[in-house]
Parts: sequence; structure tokens; C-alpha cells
Amino acid sequence: MNEDIQTLDTGLDAVPGFYVQGVHCGIKKVNNDLAVIYSPDPATAAAVFTTNRVLAAPVTLTREHLEKRGQFQMVVVNSGVANACTGQRGREDAQKMVEVATREFDLSSTELVAVASTGVIGDFLPLDKIEKGIQMVRALYPKDSSGKETARAIMTTDTFMKEAAVALSVGGKTVHIAGIAKGSGMIRPHMATMLGFLLTDATVKREALQSVLREAVDLSFNRVTVDGDTSTNDMVLLLANGKSGTPLFDEFHPDFPRFRKALIQVCQKLAKDIARDGEGATKFINIIVRRAPSEQDARTIAFTVAESPLVKTALFGEDPNWGRIMAAVGRSGVNVIPEKIMITINGYPFVENGMGTLTMTRNDLRKVIQNKELEIVIDLGLKDGAFNVWTCDLSFDYIKINSHYS
Amino acid sequence: MNEDIQTLDTGLDAVPGFYVQGVHCGIKKVNNDLAVIYSPDPATAAAVFTTNRVLAAPVTLTREHLEKRGQFQMVVVNSGVANACTGQRGREDAQKMVEVATREFDLSSTELVAVASTGVIGDFLPLDKIEKGIQMVRALYPKDSSGKETARAIMTTDTFMKEAAVALSVGGKTVHIAGIAKGSGMIRPHMATMLGFLLTDATVKREALQSVLREAVDLSFNRVTVDGDTSTNDMVLLLANGKSGTPLFDEFHPDFPRFRKALIQVCQKLAKDIARDGEGATKFINIIVRRAPSEQDARTIAFTVAESPLVKTALFGEDPNWGRIMAAVGRSGVNVIPEKIMITINGYPFVENGMGTLTMTRNDLRKVIQNKELEIVIDLGLKDGAFNVWTCDLSFDYIKINSHYS
Repeated sequence: MNEDIQTLDTGLDAVPGFYVQGVHCGIKKVNNDLAVIYSPDPATAAAVFTTNRVLAAPVTLTREHLEKRGQFQMVVVNSGVANACTGQRGREDAQKMVEVATREFDLSSTELVAVASTGVIGDFLPLDKIEKGIQMVRALYPKDSSGKETARAIMTTDTFMKEAAVALSVGGKTVHIAGIAKGSGMIRPHMATMLGFLLTDATVKREALQSVLREAVDLSFNRVTVDGDTSTNDMVLLLANGKSGTPLFDEFHPDFPRFRKALIQVCQKLAKDIARDGEGATKFINIIVRRAPSEQDARTIAFTVAESPLVKTALFGEDPNWGRIMAAVGRSGVNVIPEKIMITINGYPFVENGMGTLTMTRNDLRKVIQNKELEIVIDLGLKDGAFNVWTCDLSFDYIKINSHYS
Repeated sequence: MNEDIQTLDTGLDAVPGFYVQGVHCGIKKVNNDLAVIYSPDPATAAAVFTTNRVLAAPVTLTREHLEKRGQFQMVVVNSGVANACTGQRGREDAQKMVEVATREFDLSSTELVAVASTGVIGDFLPLDKIEKGIQMVRALYPKDSSGKETARAIMTTDTFMKEAAVALSVGGKTVHIAGIAKGSGMIRPHMATMLGFLLTDATVKREALQSVLREAVDLSFNRVTVDGDTSTNDMVLLLANGKSGTPLFDEFHPDFPRFRKALIQVCQKLAKDIARDGEGATKFINIIVRRAPSEQDARTIAFTVAESPLVKTALFGEDPNWGRIMAAVGRSGVNVIPEKIMITINGYPFVENGMGTLTMTRNDLRKVIQNKELEIVIDLGLKDGAFNVWTCDLSFDYIKINSHYS
């Protein structure tokens, strides 16, 4: 589809000049729990953060660092403990995490370090383990950079790693963009997102990097919902180290549209993977709302349907109970005309003019929703507002995972 | 508590002058599925209806009848089929249901009949069965009025009947107020409610009856959420037949405050029962938000917490994961100051100044939430806005019930 953008079957390793690593330092009983991204030279940085009013300490600190410098040389991420709702001590712990990284990698300033945490809210960071983890990575450096170990280290209830990578040409040079993300539960980015770390070897002006990241996030992570619960720790970082040798470019460069498209492609791949791997998910669902009064209305309806427990459980049970989609559309607050609504799933008609289709039996409908990937198109027949949301179903396993998490 | 209002251990039978009955006419495989409330004389009527844009046919028709006459002589309710998203035929079917009732009970006008339906959306009404059901009730009349059979006939996935009744004195006469309701799933009344039918033998002016019903609904049914899904069929009806012999009274009568208080008491009993019997519920949860910037803000936070799948699953699992409550408060959109938030459950501190309490161990906290009834107080420490919502937890059984409903 994108002949000018080559999809790579790898992750963060695709981008030259960054050292990435993940280790198990004991925060979690098993599996990697500490990730480090290191750039020998400071990289231009852009980021978006959660809009949750209850902000985790690492979010606040990383945002301050970004505002001061606009560059990062290192990102340290731990999973297992979120360092949220931890007050002044949480703030000091995040600061200590930054100081250990600065010392171990001999950086010129603590402000060149970004930190992120994910896991249980309310617990304090086990600083001794984090220090040990950073030292373990320092001992490995510069050998064995590993995108996979890194991707694994940011996972919590995720069942698979989320990686994406592409190559493209900018100003005659080959540029790479790669990213990792974690998702699974407490997923309903609200103008921000879950944890995502993106790297590129392009040389991009800071303002252009920030604005293209914001746009890419709006077109990807901000269209995912698992359970409607926006996290306190959401963060997406994009670092550009310039190692591709491109000239410094911004949105006025003729190849910028290609760079933008490639970044969106990477973010969308990761965002879809997050929906696909929602806690307990058995289905990947793309909800597309068309011909709404406005894009905002389409967005409202798409999220209302995507977060309806009745719609999600019916899809899990492969019960073609389209009335629940109609009821969710009706309660969204948008001024719809029920008689104009058409709903298709994977191209098959379910609702025509606000009523159940007469062209398919209930058994036919059931067969359609037995697919593992569902595209639900809700056509309101009004104006030209459109929006889509990626989500998953609501299963027994969601309850199982979340009734005994902490 | 209300010495001037006597709580009765019965249901609709408490109110003289109404004939109420429920039968099984075959819409559902087993259990009653058709209810009739009959008043030999037309009764003054008030009602509130769902605000869902996708309106079921019986809601539209009943609303029209109420607007024309302001009185009802009969209410016919079926469970099993919602007659929603059924277009012109649905409208005609509701009209036929009204005509059968008018004919069988020899009423002077079809406009004296209210109809309500609850069950699967999208299916057409089995009119022959409904006709048979109305005839069965006609054959029983006037013997064997039965509030219990009536309450049973409006149930769907409800596991117990919801009934309430009180007696009080108005103008020296004894007045009764009684009600039944059904709830369970697709429960998030939005300025309206699920099915509820209230009777009184008071003689109340129509406007006063409508305004006190609206207020009582706002203080009861509109504070319940099971799953955030507002139904297409919600309706609460209140009929006053004047059989108590009170003078015609309105809000200026000195005993009106007592009548208002009694009606609110009946509605709150039914509303709490609906939350208690939410689909798959194992706990009854009262979420109280205090000292919010405004009542609207308190309302927003109370519903955000009450509908958070992560909060609900943690409570089901008796996992004292209070961070999820903090995260839900934070994403509500209300301008909170996390450091000021205090959360108690059943009087025990969980969160103090935005952090986990230091006075109780995790095991202590776990013991508190092992109670079947939980009162969660979220004190924002700001201004004087307050609101409460009744809800339940989210369990495996919710998924079980809703993954194979239609």
C-alpha cells in the first residue's frame, strides 16, 4: 500500500545509533521489568502525556525535563509499580531514578533523562532494585542492544510484545522509525496515551517533531479503548537522533509528508496491537462511524459503542444482538435519526433504516460475528462526520485478570 | 426514621382501588410475562421516559397518550420482547396492544391505556400471545388482585422482585403509595429510568404529581447505574386514583412534603433494589462524592467511578486496589486537586491526601471490602457539591448473562 514506506519485521533495533536493553531486576517476580533507551548523543525529543488529573510522579518529572531541554539522552522505564498517588516521596523516588541513570551513564545533566513507570498505583518504587537494573544494563553496554528485551520489559498484563518499524527515504537518505508500546488494561487514552516509545534516526526540528507526534497519536493511540479507564501514567516519547545524516528538516521539507505517513503507520500498528491484546480480548474490533453530524459526534458515538459493556459482552458471546449497538448509539447524546441508521459488520447488513435486516437470518448474522476481526460500520445517514475506534470484546478473562490484580 | 411514614411489607396490593395482575402468556418460555394494572376509574397520571434517542414504540405511544389525556385507566406491560427498533410495524403493534386492552376491559378510549415492553431489542411483539394474556387477566378480574404476580411479570434477568409500599396521613386521611420496578441490565437511567410503576390512592393535581415524580426519580432511579447502558424502553409511571378520599391537593398543601418524602422513599427502595440486583452483582455499592466544586462535578465523578470496569472488577475480587478509584476520579474531567482527596470505605480510611493510608495494612483494607454492602465516600476537599450513585460490582456472571442473551 505504501510503496514509499518499507515495513520492517523488527522493533527498536531498526534505528541506528540507539542502545536499547531490558532486564529483570526483581520488581516483578518473573519477566523483564526495567527498560533503558540510551542515545550516546542527546536526541531531539517530543512527547504527549496523559490528561488524567491524577498524574504519576514520573509523568510530571519527564514533562518538566522535556520543557527545559527539548532533548533526551536516556529513557528509563520500569514495570510492576506505577509510582502514582505516592505524593512527595513518589516525586523524590522518580528524581532518584533519574540520578542513578545520570551517574551510571555519566550524563552531563539529570534533565537529559526521561522516566516512566507502569503497574500498581499507590505502591512506592523499589529503588534498590531499579538501581541494580540500571547497573545491569550499564554492564551490558555497548554489547547486545536488544529491541525485544526492551519491548518485553515494559509489559504488564500484555500477552505479546508490541513492536513496529519502517524505513523510508528523506532527502535522499534512508531514515528509520521504530516504536514499542504496552497496553492491555486501563486503556482509554484521552488526548494522550499509554506507554509508547518511538525512535528515529531522522534529523527533525523540535517543533515539527512535536506537532507530527501529536497528530500521529491522535490518529492512532487516541483511537483505542479497552475499558474506558484512562491511566495516570500514559506517555508517548519520540526521540530523533539524526544518525541517518539527513539535513535538519521540518514540515516544509518535500519529504515531510512521507515521514508523517510513516510515523502514523508505526503508531497505528502499535495502537491496533494494544486493542488486539486488550485484557481478556478474544476479538479485535474496528468501529467506524460515518455520515455523522460532525467528527466530534462520530467520535462520541464510536467511543460509546466501543465502551458499552453490553455490546462488548455480546460480541464476546458471538450473539448477534445488534439492538445493543442501536441502544448505545441512542444514548450517546448525539442527535441521531434512528430510521436513517445502517449498520454493517464485515460488510454484511445487520441494521437497515433502524431495524434488523430482513435479508439475513439470525444464524447468518451469528456466522459473521464468529470472525476474530470485526469491522462494524455505523452509518448515520446525516452529514459527513467520521471517526473510528479500535477496541476488543469483554470476556471472562477481563474479570479474572482485574479482580485480583494488585 | 420516618415516623410519619409507615413502611409496609407489601407491594402494589397496598393501594386500594387498583386491580393488578400478572400472567404467563408464552412470550417467555417460563415465568410471568404480561402484567396489567387496571383502575375502574381513570387515574391522574405522571411519567418520565428514557432520554435515549432510539425510542421503543411503546414509549412513544404512551407519551402521546399521557400528553393528550393526563389520565390512565390501564397499564399493560410485557417482558421478553422490547418492541424497540421495530419501525412502523412496531408502532402498529403497540397500537394493537392498546386496542386489545381497550376492547377487553371496555374502556371509553384507547388513549386511557399505557403500554410498556422490556426484553430483546429488534424482535416484533407476539401479538396473539399478548392478546391471550390480556384475556387471561380479564377472566380473572375482579378476583385475585396480586401485586406479586404483577411484579414478577415485568422481570427479565432480575433475580428478585422489586416492590415497595408505604402509608401516610394526608389531610387526615390515610394515603398509600406503592411501586414495582425491574432492572438488572442496560441500566443507567439518564434523566429517566428503567421500568417502574407506582400507584397511590391520594388525590393529587396533575402538575404537582408530575413535578414530584420527576424529583423523586432524580433522587432515586437516576442515581443507579449497573453498566452505563441507558435503555431504549425506560419508563416510570405514577397513577393516583383518589380512593383515599383526600381532598385534591398540590404542593401548597401542608401535608405535601410528607407525600413527597414518602414517594421518594418508595422510589429509593426500588432503585437500591435494582442496583443490588444488577446483572451478576455480588455487592451493593453506594458511591458518595462530597466537597466537589459543584453538584454536577460530584455527579460526573460518582458515575465515572461507578461505571469504571476496573473499579467494579476490583470490588468483585475484593482487591483493595484504591488506585483505580483515584485514576477514575482523575480522568473524570473534573478539576480535582489529587493531594486533597480523602477516600473512606465503610468509614475506614483508604486514601488520605491523595495517597494510600498509612494507618491500615493491605490486609486490613481487604477485610473492609469483603463486606457485601460498601459505602465509598470520596471527599475532594474543595467546595460543597455532593452526589451519590448506587451501583454493583462487575462479575463473571455479568459476562455470562450478557454474552448469550438474545
